[in-house]
Amino acid sequence: GALGGLGLGLWQRQQQAAMAASEEEEDEKEEKELRQRFMAPPVSGLRELRRRRRELRSRMELLIMETQGEVCRALAALDPGATFAVDTWERKEGGGGISCVLQDGEVFEKAGVNVSVVFGLLSEEAARQMRSRGKALKAKDGKLPFCAMGVSSVIHPKNPHVPTMHFNYRYFEIEEADGTKQWWFGGGTDLTPTYLNEEDAVHFHQTLKEACDKHDLKLYPKYKKWCDDYFYIKHRGERRGIGGIFFDDVDSPSKEEVFQFVKSCAKAVVPCYVPIVKRHCHDSFTPEEKLWQQLRRGRYVEFNLVYDRGTKFGLLTPGSRIESILMSLPLTARWEYMHTPPESSKEAEILEVLRNPKDWVH
Amino acid sequence: GALGGLGLGLWQRQQQAAMAASEEEEDEKEEKELRQRFMAPPVSGLRELRRRRRELRSRMELLIMETQGEVCRALAALDPGATFAVDTWERKEGGGGISCVLQDGEVFEKAGVNVSVVFGLLSEEAARQMRSRGKALKAKDGKLPFCAMGVSSVIHPKNPHVPTMHFNYRYFEIEEADGTKQWWFGGGTDLTPTYLNEEDAVHFHQTLKEACDKHDLKLYPKYKKWCDDYFYIKHRGERRGIGGIFFDDVDSPSKEEVFQFVKSCAKAVVPCYVPIVKRHCHDSFTPEEKLWQQLRRGRYVEFNLVYDRGTKFGLLTPGSRIESILMSLPLTARWEYMHTPPESSKEAEILEVLRNPKDWVH
Repeated sequence: GALGGLGLGLWQRQQQAAMAASEEEEDEKEEKELRQRFMAPPVSGLRELRRRRRELRSRMELLIMETQGEVCRALAALDPGATFAVDTWERKEGGGGISCVLQDGEVFEKAGVNVSVVFGLLSEEAARQMRSRGKALKAKDGKLPFCAMGVSSVIHPKNPHVPTMHFNYRYFEIEEADGTKQWWFGGGTDLTPTYLNEEDAVHFHQTLKEACDKHDLKLYPKYKKWCDDYFYIKHRGERRGIGGIFFDDVDSPSKEEVFQFVKSCAKAVVPCYVPIVKRHCHDSFTPEEKLWQQLRRGRYVEFNLVYDRGTKFGLLTPGSRIESILMSLPLTARWEYMHTPPESSKEAEILEVLRNPKDWVH
Repeated sequence: GALGGLGLGLWQRQQQAAMAASEEEEDEKEEKELRQRFMAPPVSGLRELRRRRRELRSRMELLIMETQGEVCRALAALDPGATFAVDTWERKEGGGGISCVLQDGEVFEKAGVNVSVVFGLLSEEAARQMRSRGKALKAKDGKLPFCAMGVSSVIHPKNPHVPTMHFNYRYFEIEEADGTKQWWFGGGTDLTPTYLNEEDAVHFHQTLKEACDKHDLKLYPKYKKWCDDYFYIKHRGERRGIGGIFFDDVDSPSKEEVFQFVKSCAKAVVPCYVPIVKRHCHDSFTPEEKLWQQLRRGRYVEFNLVYDRGTKFGLLTPGSRIESILMSLPLTARWEYMHTPPESSKEAEILEVLRNPKDWVH
């Protein structure tokens, strides 16, 4: 207030200045650290994000940037000869992103980690499609201001004994005509092995379960089932992989609590996956095993192009960056007419699990 | 009449019997010939088709069987070591089909020629989706009796200098509540080269134009444009290939005239394509050319899974045979992040034509 401001003595003013200086130093130190941890400058600018650091949008953008950096560093450490190409791109209609792609490495065939932060105006129809529950939203003049951000990634390894992994964590805000803000989170992490390894499956699901359990014991079973239901290739009667967790359109119990849950999930990505890669990246494999991997890659393409909501939404959205959306496709894939693995083969074993999902942890 | 029947003398009765016998012999001879020309017994049975030989449904089924045989024999002659696997299949809900697939030959990577003849009951919604113009059809008790038949084929050669070819000719009948029969034809033949060869493009389009021109000079230009519009990969801003002809939902000027047109198109398939295969199947090629072919195969997959109405309809139709629908996918495909061919390269040359379709004949 006026009184306090006017009533400050010299000593008090000096103290304030010193504090401001140290805060500034602290700020600079933190900024420097963040810069080192990020793959590129954030879309919204580091200064701006730190200025609005109490807003959830800023915290989420820092989290997705942090996750991108963490995952890229962990993967690069597993594939020393390879490096991530980093592309920053802008979206004409508002926002942009950072795509990091490692292609044709020793360990990874194709690994992409993409951050995007986009905003602008949505039509009522597009807004409705964005929410999986298809809630109607009231627009002023037919347009709704929105902001969508997320980190998404697909890792396709070379060795058929190392599974493909996918994760995605995202946050949406839409402002309705009366000024109320709708917000929700979505995301998930899931594993697509070429061959079943029970130990890997248990480790993966156990790590996800622990991340969920910190927040609510109901989350893991609910989101595990949602994952099995979502990654379903209907025309094949198979799931894409052995699952993980998946959720969409989550806006309760509170923004803060959902954010904390999403943060736990994002932090679990590296511990979920890296031990599995380490365990198998030097496994020997036969040409037949490589061929089966390629056929399973074909199924991956089928799911992503025919069913995946994110991919379909992206392909239909004007101004979206196609290369970043289709980064999820494998480097190579194969389709054979009437390929059926022999009974009780290792190929039939994984198919059985894809047709009838199992509970890996209790 | 009764008089004629009663008034026949012995000689006349002998003559009639002789004629019937020779007709039967003739019939048997024709049946034997057809059996040799077909890849398998027709879905509706040869005897039945010949009994109802005046009905358009039968004539169309004979035409698609004939086309399947013709194309398979022509392709097998180009790839002497390879043979077509022939699968006949039944559809629980009514009808069935014959799938002929040659895989991993010397000349062809994957060549499939599929005939299907299916019938049963459609929901009003499914019937509406079947017609590209989305005309509403009135059902009795919500269900419409329908019959759909067609021959469809995709040929993916190994050599990147031999283009991929696709064709499909189909006929639909739907019976409305008041007994009126809606019918229409659809189809087309189109070429997808990895590299542009103008001579091939001209030969292909010229052959199609000649088939069209026999019926109406307006058909080729109209269906050529329809083809360029239909095989558009919107998210890439590219056509799938250099086109050909495409038409759907055609029900004028008359059933007979459209059938004759479709017949000309079907007969043009072999002369359109075989000379191009012969010309290039021994061309030498580099690993870089093979790689570009694989990237274009990836685009082929994108079109078929994201946009193709037939594929989407098939994947969503209960009881459809997935293996026959996805026969159109190449044996192998590739996706590289941010692949852009250098300016004025042969790769850039074909891209230019895919972005801006050309008129190949006038």
